[in-house]
Amino acid sequence: MAKVGIVMGSISDLEVVKPAIDVLTKFGVESVVRVISAHRTPVEAHDFASNAIENGLEIIISAAGKAAHLGGVMASFTTLPIIGLPVKSSTMDGLDSLLSTVQMPAGVPVATVAINGGLNAGLLAVQMLALKYPELASKLVLYKEDMAESVRKADLKLSMELSK
Amino acid sequence: MAKVGIVMGSISDLEVVKPAIDVLTKFGVESVVRVISAHRTPVEAHDFASNAIENGLEIIISAAGKAAHLGGVMASFTTLPIIGLPVKSSTMDGLDSLLSTVQMPAGVPVATVAINGGLNAGLLAVQMLALKYPELASKLVLYKEDMAESVRKADLKLSMELSK
Amino acid sequence: MAKVGIVMGSISDLEVVKPAIDVLTKFGVESVVRVISAHRTPVEAHDFASNAIENGLEIIISAAGKAAHLGGVMASFTTLPIIGLPVKSSTMDGLDSLLSTVQMPAGVPVATVAINGGLNAGLLAVQMLALKYPELASKLVLYKEDMAESVRKADLKLSMELSK
Amino acid sequence: MAKVGIVMGSISDLEVVKPAIDVLTKFGVESVVRVISAHRTPVEAHDFASNAIENGLEIIISAAGKAAHLGGVMASFTTLPIIGLPVKSSTMDGLDSLLSTVQMPAGVPVATVAINGGLNAGLLAVQMLALKYPELASKLVLYKEDMAESVRKADLKLSMELSK
Amino acid sequence: MAKVGIVMGSISDLEVVKPAIDVLTKFGVESVVRVISAHRTPVEAHDFASNAIENGLEIIISAAGKAAHLGGVMASFTTLPIIGLPVKSSTMDGLDSLLSTVQMPAGVPVATVAINGGLNAGLLAVQMLALKYPELASKLVLYKEDMAESVRKADLKLSMELSK
Amino acid sequence: MAKVGIVMGSISDLEVVKPAIDVLTKFGVESVVRVISAHRTPVEAHDFASNAIENGLEIIISAAGKAAHLGGVMASFTTLPIIGLPVKSSTMDGLDSLLSTVQMPAGVPVATVAINGGLNAGLLAVQMLALKYPELASKLVLYKEDMAESVRKADLKLSMELSK
Amino acid sequence: MAKVGIVMGSISDLEVVKPAIDVLTKFGVESVVRVISAHRTPVEAHDFASNAIENGLEIIISAAGKAAHLGGVMASFTTLPIIGLPVKSSTMDGLDSLLSTVQMPAGVPVATVAINGGLNAGLLAVQMLALKYPELASKLVLYKEDMAESVRKADLKLSMELSK
Amino acid sequence: MAKVGIVMGSISDLEVVKPAIDVLTKFGVESVVRVISAHRTPVEAHDFASNAIENGLEIIISAAGKAAHLGGVMASFTTLPIIGLPVKSSTMDGLDSLLSTVQMPAGVPVATVAINGGLNAGLLAVQMLALKYPELASKLVLYKEDMAESVRKADLKLSMELSK
Repeated sequence: MAKVGIVMGSISDLEVVKPAIDVLTKFGVESVVRVISAHRTPVEAHDFASNAIENGLEIIISAAGKAAHLGGVMASFTTLPIIGLPVKSSTMDGLDSLLSTVQMPAGVPVATVAINGGLNAGLLAVQMLALKYPELASKLVLYKEDMAESVRKADLKLSMELSK
Repeated sequence: MAKVGIVMGSISDLEVVKPAIDVLTKFGVESVVRVISAHRTPVEAHDFASNAIENGLEIIISAAGKAAHLGGVMASFTTLPIIGLPVKSSTMDGLDSLLSTVQMPAGVPVATVAINGGLNAGLLAVQMLALKYPELASKLVLYKEDMAESVRKADLKLSMELSK
Repeated sequence: MAKVGIVMGSISDLEVVKPAIDVLTKFGVESVVRVISAHRTPVEAHDFASNAIENGLEIIISAAGKAAHLGGVMASFTTLPIIGLPVKSSTMDGLDSLLSTVQMPAGVPVATVAINGGLNAGLLAVQMLALKYPELASKLVLYKEDMAESVRKADLKLSMELSK
Repeated sequence: MAKVGIVMGSISDLEVVKPAIDVLTKFGVESVVRVISAHRTPVEAHDFASNAIENGLEIIISAAGKAAHLGGVMASFTTLPIIGLPVKSSTMDGLDSLLSTVQMPAGVPVATVAINGGLNAGLLAVQMLALKYPELASKLVLYKEDMAESVRKADLKLSMELSK
Repeated sequence: MAKVGIVMGSISDLEVVKPAIDVLTKFGVESVVRVISAHRTPVEAHDFASNAIENGLEIIISAAGKAAHLGGVMASFTTLPIIGLPVKSSTMDGLDSLLSTVQMPAGVPVATVAINGGLNAGLLAVQMLALKYPELASKLVLYKEDMAESVRKADLKLSMELSK
Repeated sequence: MAKVGIVMGSISDLEVVKPAIDVLTKFGVESVVRVISAHRTPVEAHDFASNAIENGLEIIISAAGKAAHLGGVMASFTTLPIIGLPVKSSTMDGLDSLLSTVQMPAGVPVATVAINGGLNAGLLAVQMLALKYPELASKLVLYKEDMAESVRKADLKLSMELSK
Repeated sequence: MAKVGIVMGSISDLEVVKPAIDVLTKFGVESVVRVISAHRTPVEAHDFASNAIENGLEIIISAAGKAAHLGGVMASFTTLPIIGLPVKSSTMDGLDSLLSTVQMPAGVPVATVAINGGLNAGLLAVQMLALKYPELASKLVLYKEDMAESVRKADLKLSMELSK
Repeated sequence: MAKVGIVMGSISDLEVVKPAIDVLTKFGVESVVRVISAHRTPVEAHDFASNAIENGLEIIISAAGKAAHLGGVMASFTTLPIIGLPVKSSTMDGLDSLLSTVQMPAGVPVATVAINGGLNAGLLAVQMLALKYPELASKLVLYKEDMAESVRKADLKLSMELSK
């Protein structure tokens, strides 16, 4: 069974990370969730990334705010794909988190999703895993159709409301 | 053999895309490179994304500038992972391209790399493919070591220069 | 009677879109209001835009937030004028929506109004339609005068308050 | 025959405005091109906008940079649709021009196109005029097809280059 | 007695303008306060500025938000000094108002103060008037000293609090 | 005769300041031009501002870039009106200079003009001085008319060019 | 015993400054806390900085918002290290404070910490003082370990919560 | 003798770093200059920071661009003061480098100087070292006076040029 590591810089990021955990669970992907700070527990960060493959992880999702280095640290210690989830902080409206996460130098990419885009971080992990696990690919097709269906329902509901 | 689709919104984006093509080649990954505009050839965009799986593609890299919708269009028509490569345009220093690419709504992620980060777009594709193709994983380890080695050489060269 | 299509990416955009619907109604312009997501229901988006002329629409107003591609998708599938209404999202204060909507490439314009500028989106549609429907032109002149009158009343009210 | 007014705040904006003039000409739309400054010749601006309808204009394109008020001035004196074309200035990369043009208050819209988007300003005018002049609608369909064709040619050219 | 005109684009700007009125009153400077919209009552704006000198005004303070053109309109119709007061609007955190006010083209300056800086708008008017009215210059010296004194009191109060 | 002090933080700002000096000269206003750094020669800055009134200055224009504190320092030591001229530096496109100059706290205004707006800094000084010196007011009216005339000439020239 | 001066531009900055005072106290470093405004009490600012060394201060922490000049003023009158603490103000989300503090000209550095980063301002002071006072260096090692330990506890707590 | 470590993420940063090296040399402070990449040679980064105290370093200057994590990595592995020098990159005008460097989380400060502010990075290091080495304090006083003198010379030169 596929396994994804999820690290967040602070436990206060859990609210943003939760949709990622949930979507992975929904797809039957196991997740290992950790609070690891690039700056406050750098050794743990190093160890987590360095041993990720050995520990059976296939992707790492990294959530952090402000000068968000956690994704970069992960990417520097493993060749696994790293998904960066910029968390909006109390100043700068998430722009600092976004730029710190996405503007990585040549050779060390971090696959960045939208600010506070927890669900997409999880879903992107599933899309990557689906390259290897065909059953996930099938589930993704259904997920996409469900998503479309819920938009269609909203569309219908709006029509009824407006026609009152 | 793994196959990656690369689409760019305009042939003028080729310079930014080239390092992605080159790094894929270096890793022995085949690429299909196309000029497809989300806005000027939307049917082609639709077809390319919709048939991507059938055509053997496993990942799509999408390069575009300004209101960079190409990655989003790809993501809306396939469940394959989409890598978004924001291209710096003549105004706004790439901020428009970055935000248009990365700020995707819940349910439709685009894995975004740095503005003009062509090499990283290619490398991220390889990292994703390595989940399935173990030989790529081994090559990535070597690539990472080579990269480190070239920094070490630069470090040595600097030492010698400064000690003159 | 003139007919305007209004599409929004999510039903949560309705609050921003409402003033557009209302101003169209006030001018006696019919509107067809839909929830259509560029990314979650791309086929519906394609169909709506492709069939817009056939369905009697003369203008499309498109409201969306974040990486706001809906206006661009509309513009890629029809030659009708597209009015883009950027919706402020929870991060980036609407700058992402604005740039994603307005920075369209050469050949595919989207007529963009202010962030959350629902009333102006509707009014701009009326102005365009007035090119063809002279009665709307007359109503616009009255509307403009009413608007001026309400500013004059505010001016008078202020004078009275300050002179107390 | 349809007639569009084009005003620019300074003759140095001509380079950005030229594609708008050209595309109008290409579609057989007459244009009246003027240098009028919102701040330096406000009376001329007032007169131009106030008399626009009387002078047979159906749309006004307004190009200006920095604190770009020209579109707003036009919009305040006529009910015709105003197309705002933000011109990139020597500082702030066009952000000042864009915000000054697009962020109009409720009741007075300016249909804004991309920074330095001259061609799109002209094309948007044609799209609006096509509501009234059916022959323009037909030409727009051809234009859209030509545009797609040129992307397809670029795509083909790229394929040939890369396969060398 | 000196007289300052104060115009605001909307009565909702009164809260930001109030400190300007108050500081003028405190200095014994008369103010004429009006709600005039650059875009909704452009004729009134034109008249107010054109007749300002004749009506005994010596300075005009202009408060406006979003695409804040009111200061520019005032400046285009009179040679009096115009003080621009950018008002923070519901999106873009006042950056749009600031840039629209301050980035005026060569030949037509607007003396811009901080976003929502009502008090400073009034005080700057007093400083300008003090060039002509010596009694204001004396009052400004006292005002500056009072201001310093109140900082000194805050400093003392803090010392006492911290030493508890 | 009226006298204006002009201070710049570095001699490299002279190019931006030159139009201010020239326009003052054109209006017959004397200027005292100094290189004074808020941070490198703070005592000189203190002395210049403190003695400005005694030395017959009536206004101070302050040009500086980056963390542009010079205007603020001037304003803290005199009650004369201070005109802040933000100079574009090699990074941040002048945004740092603008915000450092304009965002002054309540009680200490700096009348800010556009980034690199040297001419406007000088012209604003003349407008302020015209409150006291009626001959300047007359000259300003002529200047405004000349400015309008040059726009009209550009307009005419354009007409002729386009009609070729 | 080491002594640090802390100045804030307004007593309303105390909330942001408090963590700096507290961390210094925790490390046994004495602090002298003052409300001094660069613009409202410039003489006090001058005196505080000029006499800082004589008064036994070894570092100055300066907290200010908007056009935050206080750090720069301190730096211009002493050779002690100045730590700049940008305070988020009611507009511009702290970007003005940050740029005004950090973008100092060559020769006059201000060591800037994050917007509202009070704790880090204090901690940076301790790090600097530890160069001279070895006991502080030892305490810093313990502090770092405590910090890591609290992240580890959060990590453990999360594990337990998620495994419920 | 005092010793400062200087690390840069890429040898292309040397131009920005050079003034830091030079000013340290001028003050008689030894520097150890290294090319170390936070992301490409993370082990070297870890080792450099972890062993910094043991190797006799007293301060580390870290120069990096884009998602500039190098300063943060240094700060996570040592209690020495870290000076962050944001390097302007080819996109985003240095804003990404600045925010990635300065917006550090509580507990792990990086003392940030201006974008491309190499000289100030070196000078700040000297100011910190002067806390411990009194001879540096004396040299800083002279340096400050020399700097003032060179501004005075520029002032004099300007006077002579303008009076020609």
